[in-house]
Amino acid sequence: MRIMLKMSYNGKDFHGFQYQHNYRTVQGVIEAVLTKMHKSGVRIHPASRTDRGVHALEQYCHFDTSLNLTTDKWHYVLNRNLPDDIGITGVTEIPDDFHVRYHSKGKTYRYSIYTSEAVNPFLHGLKTHYPHKLDKTRMREAMAPFMGTHDFTSFSSAKAEIVNKVRTITEFRIEETDDGFDFVISGSGFLYNMVRIIVAYVVEVGAGKRAPETGEIIGQKDRTIVPRTAPAEGLYLERVHLDEGF
Amino acid sequence: MRIMLKMSYNGKDFHGFQYQHNYRTVQGVIEAVLTKMHKSGVRIHPASRTDRGVHALEQYCHFDTSLNLTTDKWHYVLNRNLPDDIGITGVTEIPDDFHVRYHSKGKTYRYSIYTSEAVNPFLHGLKTHYPHKLDKTRMREAMAPFMGTHDFTSFSSAKAEIVNKVRTITEFRIEETDDGFDFVISGSGFLYNMVRIIVAYVVEVGAGKRAPETGEIIGQKDRTIVPRTAPAEGLYLERVHLDEGF
Repeated sequence: MRIMLKMSYNGKDFHGFQYQHNYRTVQGVIEAVLTKMHKSGVRIHPASRTDRGVHALEQYCHFDTSLNLTTDKWHYVLNRNLPDDIGITGVTEIPDDFHVRYHSKGKTYRYSIYTSEAVNPFLHGLKTHYPHKLDKTRMREAMAPFMGTHDFTSFSSAKAEIVNKVRTITEFRIEETDDGFDFVISGSGFLYNMVRIIVAYVVEVGAGKRAPETGEIIGQKDRTIVPRTAPAEGLYLERVHLDEGF
Repeated sequence: MRIMLKMSYNGKDFHGFQYQHNYRTVQGVIEAVLTKMHKSGVRIHPASRTDRGVHALEQYCHFDTSLNLTTDKWHYVLNRNLPDDIGITGVTEIPDDFHVRYHSKGKTYRYSIYTSEAVNPFLHGLKTHYPHKLDKTRMREAMAPFMGTHDFTSFSSAKAEIVNKVRTITEFRIEETDDGFDFVISGSGFLYNMVRIIVAYVVEVGAGKRAPETGEIIGQKDRTIVPRTAPAEGLYLERVHLDEGF
């Protein structure tokens, strides 16, 4: 039987999703609980591997099990045994040929910054502090050209090994919050660090530190033009767009 | 010259205020920065020693220095060098005979709980999760008799070494929040774990797990009647009431 978990987690105290020996990871913590329940190793497969410090408001993973539990029972037992920085929000039985990573059409990320002059200790690890006045009109000007299908070489980590860097952005908007701005960006897929590099660029434009020349930068396909990467702590995987019916 | 710092901190990743060898504490982190600046050991003295995991919205400490910096410069340099879970919110030069601990008339604490059924991973370490329906009228009935001057033996840790357990409570109110309740309690002084024991009792009354018999319990001067202590993560030192003029 294949079980899919819907979950959220606070990434602050995790070294990312993926299992790492000797480090606390989301995969490691969930697999430890499942392995104890099954009395043998269980491997989970996520929709998306979030990096160290990155949060998830909605994330999915699946695993195969021989245990005969109702979805309600799975829900209860997992939340009961998982630490408080992970919450299981849904459990579904799925077909054996369904794979959460390959059956998703895209993702939405949220990037959250606060701009007050003073640090707020209670946002530590949860929002990025950027104590500068940001011009929303300038940021919107920088954001608009990202929409659509482009080669995002200029906005992806130079370490990325993927050859095809063409991706499609379907939504990129800004929301004013009590203490700053949230950026919401959706697309078919994202390159390594792509959201964090795009946000770092847009914010620098908003602060008047660079000009809005998004179209030109995309055209040059050169990462060195956009050297900064916004910190992980402000990044949330907000939604995974699964195929119809899931 | 004696300098007083006003500050707030997120207690989640600290083993309390007081210095401990090999553990990250608020005192340890601040003294490390000051010692580096002075090139010799500097000792700070707090208004209140908060326990492991307890937060401060407003806390004070003072230290003596031979450095000749303006208060603005102290403010800037300390925030620049302290981690993001501590924020210095004010710096004042005070008389050499002023001691923040002995020149305070009382303190206000806030205890924050959320009552939703599901855990919220983003409140981990910041609010206490108590997934039960709480009856505000019952809680108010349990809270009222705490006001005034009493011997609080029944509501203090059995480990407390202090002989005189008479304290005066000047305010005890409840605030409804988006996801639960905050308790606000002020007094001239508090015994070890006193706020957390009082809150654990009031919440059990609110959940219908015990009767509101505050007056009787105070009268019996016996800690075993109130065995629970609410977790540190929901507790905030909200205000230190310094003597007039500070």
